[in-house]
Amino acid sequence: MPEQKEYRLADLQLPQDLRKLSYLQCARLAKEIRSLMVRTISKNGGHLASNLGAVELTLALHRIFESPKDKFIWDVGHQCYTHKILTGRYKQFRTIRKEGGISGFPKPSESPHDAFISGHSSTSISVACGMAEAMRLAGDHHYAIAIIGDGALTGGLSFEGLNNGGKKKLSNLIVILNDNDMSISGNVGAVSGYLRSIRESESYVRTKQEIERNLRATPKVGVPTIKVLKRTKDSFKRVVLKQATMFEQMGFVYLGPVDGHNQQELEEVLKTAKCYKTPVLIHVKTVKGKGYLPAELHPSQFHGVSKFDIMTGNPEVSGDDCYSAVFGKELTEMAAEDERICAITAAMEFGTGLQYFAAEYPGRFYDVGIAEQHAVTFAAGLSACGRLPFFAVYSTFLQRSYDQLIHDVAIGGLHVVLAIDRAGIVGEDGETHQGMFDVPMLTSIPGTVIYSPSCYAELRMCLRRAVFEDTGLTAVRYPRGNEGTPAFPLDDLNTEYTYTEDPEAEILLISYGRIYEALWKGHETCERSGYKTSLLKLTRIFPVDEELVEKALRYRVVIFFEESSGFGGISTIFGSLLAQYGFGGRFVRVSADNFLKHASVPSLLEKADLSEHAVCRYIYAYGEKS
Amino acid sequence: MPEQKEYRLADLQLPQDLRKLSYLQCARLAKEIRSLMVRTISKNGGHLASNLGAVELTLALHRIFESPKDKFIWDVGHQCYTHKILTGRYKQFRTIRKEGGISGFPKPSESPHDAFISGHSSTSISVACGMAEAMRLAGDHHYAIAIIGDGALTGGLSFEGLNNGGKKKLSNLIVILNDNDMSISGNVGAVSGYLRSIRESESYVRTKQEIERNLRATPKVGVPTIKVLKRTKDSFKRVVLKQATMFEQMGFVYLGPVDGHNQQELEEVLKTAKCYKTPVLIHVKTVKGKGYLPAELHPSQFHGVSKFDIMTGNPEVSGDDCYSAVFGKELTEMAAEDERICAITAAMEFGTGLQYFAAEYPGRFYDVGIAEQHAVTFAAGLSACGRLPFFAVYSTFLQRSYDQLIHDVAIGGLHVVLAIDRAGIVGEDGETHQGMFDVPMLTSIPGTVIYSPSCYAELRMCLRRAVFEDTGLTAVRYPRGNEGTPAFPLDDLNTEYTYTEDPEAEILLISYGRIYEALWKGHETCERSGYKTSLLKLTRIFPVDEELVEKALRYRVVIFFEESSGFGGISTIFGSLLAQYGFGGRFVRVSADNFLKHASVPSLLEKADLSEHAVCRYIYAYGEKS
Repeated sequence: MPEQKEYRLADLQLPQDLRKLSYLQCARLAKEIRSLMVRTISKNGGHLASNLGAVELTLALHRIFESPKDKFIWDVGHQCYTHKILTGRYKQFRTIRKEGGISGFPKPSESPHDAFISGHSSTSISVACGMAEAMRLAGDHHYAIAIIGDGALTGGLSFEGLNNGGKKKLSNLIVILNDNDMSISGNVGAVSGYLRSIRESESYVRTKQEIERNLRATPKVGVPTIKVLKRTKDSFKRVVLKQATMFEQMGFVYLGPVDGHNQQELEEVLKTAKCYKTPVLIHVKTVKGKGYLPAELHPSQFHGVSKFDIMTGNPEVSGDDCYSAVFGKELTEMAAEDERICAITAAMEFGTGLQYFAAEYPGRFYDVGIAEQHAVTFAAGLSACGRLPFFAVYSTFLQRSYDQLIHDVAIGGLHVVLAIDRAGIVGEDGETHQGMFDVPMLTSIPGTVIYSPSCYAELRMCLRRAVFEDTGLTAVRYPRGNEGTPAFPLDDLNTEYTYTEDPEAEILLISYGRIYEALWKGHETCERSGYKTSLLKLTRIFPVDEELVEKALRYRVVIFFEESSGFGGISTIFGSLLAQYGFGGRFVRVSADNFLKHASVPSLLEKADLSEHAVCRYIYAYGEKS
Repeated sequence: MPEQKEYRLADLQLPQDLRKLSYLQCARLAKEIRSLMVRTISKNGGHLASNLGAVELTLALHRIFESPKDKFIWDVGHQCYTHKILTGRYKQFRTIRKEGGISGFPKPSESPHDAFISGHSSTSISVACGMAEAMRLAGDHHYAIAIIGDGALTGGLSFEGLNNGGKKKLSNLIVILNDNDMSISGNVGAVSGYLRSIRESESYVRTKQEIERNLRATPKVGVPTIKVLKRTKDSFKRVVLKQATMFEQMGFVYLGPVDGHNQQELEEVLKTAKCYKTPVLIHVKTVKGKGYLPAELHPSQFHGVSKFDIMTGNPEVSGDDCYSAVFGKELTEMAAEDERICAITAAMEFGTGLQYFAAEYPGRFYDVGIAEQHAVTFAAGLSACGRLPFFAVYSTFLQRSYDQLIHDVAIGGLHVVLAIDRAGIVGEDGETHQGMFDVPMLTSIPGTVIYSPSCYAELRMCLRRAVFEDTGLTAVRYPRGNEGTPAFPLDDLNTEYTYTEDPEAEILLISYGRIYEALWKGHETCERSGYKTSLLKLTRIFPVDEELVEKALRYRVVIFFEESSGFGGISTIFGSLLAQYGFGGRFVRVSADNFLKHASVPSLLEKADLSEHAVCRYIYAYGEKS
C-alpha cells in the first residue's frame, strides 16, 4: 500500500488489513474512529472519554497481536469501542446500546474477538491469569493481555491478580496499564499518587527518550536467540526508573511510561513485551477524552453520558431531576442537622449525587476509589467509633461488598446506611449493570432493614428514618432516573406501606418501588372495565410485615410484581409466608429471574411483565368482571 | 517492683500492671501464656500456631499503647488469644470456644478491649482507617492499630485499605505486619516472595543492628518538639532499606523488619511509630508456633486444630474420615480421567482436602492465597479457555466472591464447579464462620445448579454429575466433619431426590444434606408411636423441581427443615411455589435465620430445631395419631 493513500474504515478488511498501514495512515484512521464515536455516542449515550483515550492503543494491539488467538481482556469495558469497530462491528456501531444492537461492553456471544465479558472493574488481570495458564496447559503460545485503567487498579481484585500473576511467572501474560490519571471521578488513593510520581518524575522525560532510542535498536520480534533477549532486557534495565517500581517488586517486568497517543512508541513497546519470558506490565499514559475538546476539558462529565450536543458538549437532559440528586441534597440537609453523618463513595461522586455533600462537607466525604469492599469495612470502622456513615453505591457494584456487609457490619450490629442507586433495571448498560441482586443479597443477611420508596417524597422520608430511627444495617434503594409524574395518590405517603382496599375486590396486587406506578395505572384501567383490585404498596420491604400477610389471606388471588431477581426477593418471601399462614387462594409471582440484556428501561419492564400493560393482562387473566 | 520477682498472670492487674514489668519478667509471663495456650487448645481445639507467634507482640502492644482507648484490630483473629488473656479473660480462657464460654475470635460484645469483630481475613486495615478517621473527627488522639499477617495481606481488601490509608495521611493509623512467612498453608504470591526478599536481604541484619543502635538513642515518646521528630525520622531514613519498599511507595513510613520475639526491640519500634504524624507500617518477623516444638515444625497442621496430645502433638482424631477427604480423593480420581480438570484453593489446601490432588497433579493445582475474588475470576478465565476448574472453598469465605460469581462466571454461562466445604453449621468458630449463606447467595444467581448430598456416596455422585454432565455455575455443598453412620436407606441414592411415601401420611417432611438423617430418625421414632409421615430428601436442591411441589400438594402439612439461612434458601422458594400451585394446607418452615454463636454442632442443631428431637416435636405438634 502506498504511503499516501488515505484508507477509511469502510475500505479495509479489519482487523487484518491494519498491519499494512503506515503510522500516518493509522493516524488518519484514528481520527475517523474518534469522529464516529463522538457522533454515535452523542445520539446513543455511552462511555465516551475513556474510549477516546484508547484509540491508538487499540490500533497498536491489533497490529502487533493477533486477535482472537491472542486474547484482549478489556477491564470494565469502558475502552472497547475502537476494538468493536475494528473487529467486524463497524457497520453495527450506530446500534450500540440500542435494543437488538451491539452491547456497550465486551461480550463473547457477540464476537470471538471479545474474549471475556466485562462491565465491573478490576477483573481483567485475574481473567488474563486464567487464560494465560489455560493456554500454557494446552501448549498454546499466544498471549493473554489485560488492558486496565489506573482507576480499576485501585480495586483489590487487581492486586490479587497482580500478586498471583507475578508469582506464576507466566510467559504469556501482559498487563497494559492505561493510565489517564483519572478514574471515574478523579482518581484517589496512594497508588494514584504513586503513578503520578512516576509520570512526573524527572526521569520520565529521560526514560521516554531513552526508550525511543533503544527501541530503534531493538531487533525484529521473534528472532529466537537468547542474545537478542538479553540485549533487550539490558537496554530496558537501563531505561526503567532507577528505583524499582511496585510492579517490579511484585514480579512483573515494568516497561514505560510510554505516550499512549504515539503510535510508533506504543507498537515498539508491545513488540518488546513479546520478547520477555515473564509477566510484563506496560505503563501507557493516555489522555481521557483525547481529540474531543469538551471531553478533554471535562473528562468526568464525559465518562458515562446520555445524549449530548456535539458542538457544545452540553447534555440534552439536565442531571438535576433524578433520584440521585434528591438523595444527595437530602443527605446534605441531614448532615447540617447531625455532624456524625459521613458519606462514602467508590469513585462515583457525581453518579450517586454526592457532589452536593462533598462541596458542603469535604471533611466528612470519602471517595475511596473503585474499592467497594473497603468502602463498607471503612464505614463499619467509622460506625464502631460513633459516626453515622452512608455508603452511596450502585446496586450492581454493591455485589462486591456482600461479605463485608455480613462480616464487618451485620454480625456486630453496626449502624451503616446503604444508599443504593440504580436499583432495578438500568437499561442500556445491559446484563452486567442491571440492579437485580441487591434485594436477595440483603434479605439473606440477618437484621437488615430495606426501604424501596416509590417517589422523591418517600425517598426523603426513608432516608431520615434510616439514619435517625433505625439501627444496624439499613438500605434505601431507588432506581436510575426520575420519578416522572406519579399517578398514584401522594396524600398518604409513609415509610411502611399503603394499602388501598376495594372491599369487593378478589385480587390483591402487591409491589414496591418505581413499578407501583404501573400497578396503580393498571388497577385504574381495569376498574373502568369492571375488574376490581386492591393494591398494596410496600415501602419498608424487609423484614416483611406479617400483618400484611394476614390482610392478603382474604383474597382469591394475590399477584406480587417485583423489579428484582425473585429468588430471595420479597415476592418469594411473601409467597412462602402466605403458605405458612394457610392461604387457600392462588399466589402469582412476577419478577425478573434472568439476566436482562441491554434495551431501554420501558422495553425491559414490558418484557419482564412489570409494565402497566402486563399488570392489566394479569388482572384480566385472573379476574372476574363484577 | 524488684527485677527478681516472678509475676504470674494471676498476680497481676491486667493489662495495666504489664507496664511495670521488666523485660525478664515479660519473658517469664510469655512462657506462662504459651503454656496456658497449648494446654487449653489441646483440649478445646482452636488456632494455635499463629497465637503462639504473637505473644511478645501482644505484650508489647499492651505495654506501649493503652487499650481500649487505643484500638487494636486483630486481623482474622487468629492471634488474639494472648490479648484475651491479658484483658480480663484469663480465668475464662479455659472456656474458649465452648458453648457459653469466650469466643475464639475478637468480639466487642465480650470485652471493650475487643475493638472490632473478626474471623475473615484482610479487613483490619480498612477497619483501622475508619476508626482512625472517626477519632480524628472527634478530636481524639489515640491510635487505631491493625495487626495483620502476611497471609491476610494477600487479600485484595488489604490492598484497598493500604491504598486509602496511605492517601489519607492519618497520623493515628499504624499497621503491624506480623510476618511469619506462612499464611494458612504456605504463603503464595509475589508479595510473599517480596517480603522474603526484604527479610533475607543482606541489609536485614544491618538494618536490624542499626535500628537497635538508633532506638537506644530515641528519646522518650511524647516529647512534643519538632526537633525530636525530625531526628527520629532521620535516623530511620538511614536504616530502612535503600530501595523504597512497596509500603513506602503507597504512602506509609516503613519500619522494620524487627524480631517479633525480642521484647525490647518490639517496644522500641512501637514507641518510635507513635512519633510519626503519618501512617506507619511496622514489619515484624515472627515464628509461627513459637515455643511449642510440634507447632514450630508443622505450623500448617497447627493452624486450626482439634484436640491433640500435648507430648507428641498428634491429633486425637484422624483427618482422613471427613467430607473434605472424600471430595479430595474423588476429585483426584476424576482428574485422572479428564486432564481438563483443575483445582483452586484460597490458602486452604489441607482444610479442603486438596492435598491429594496437589500431590498428584501439581501442574493443575493453584493455591492463590487468601484471595477468594481472584480464585473465582481466575477459574472463569481457565473455563473460558477450555479447562474444567473446581474452586474448593469454605462456605463462609465464598461470600467474598459473590460479584465474581455473577459477573465473571454466571453471565457468561461459564462452567465452574464450586466445592463448598463447611456448608451449614460449623460449631466452635462461631458467627463469623457458620456456612449459612451459600444457598441464598447462589439461588439469587440465574442459572446456578446446587447439590447438597447427604452422605459420602452421594457426594461422589454429585461431583461427577457437576463436572461431566452439568454446564454453567454448579455447586456441590457439604458439611464439616464426617457422615457418621447414616440410618436412612442407602439403596436408592441418586443426584435428584428421594421420596419416601407413606400413602396414609398427612405430613410431608422435606430436607437436604446432613440433617436428612434427623428427619429419617424422627420419622422412624414417631411412626412407632403411630404418627405417619412421608419424607422427601432433595439432593439437587436448586433449581427446585416443580414435580416435587406437585407431589407435596396432597399433604395437610408440609414441614421444610433447612440447615441454612432461610430467606432466599430453598425452604422459602419451596413455600412460595406451594402458594403458587394453590396448596391449601399448612406450610411450616424451620431454618436458621439468625447469626449462630459458637457451640458444638449438635447443640446448635438442637437450638435451631434441626435435630431429631425437634423433628419429633414438629410431628407431634402437627400430626394426628392414626
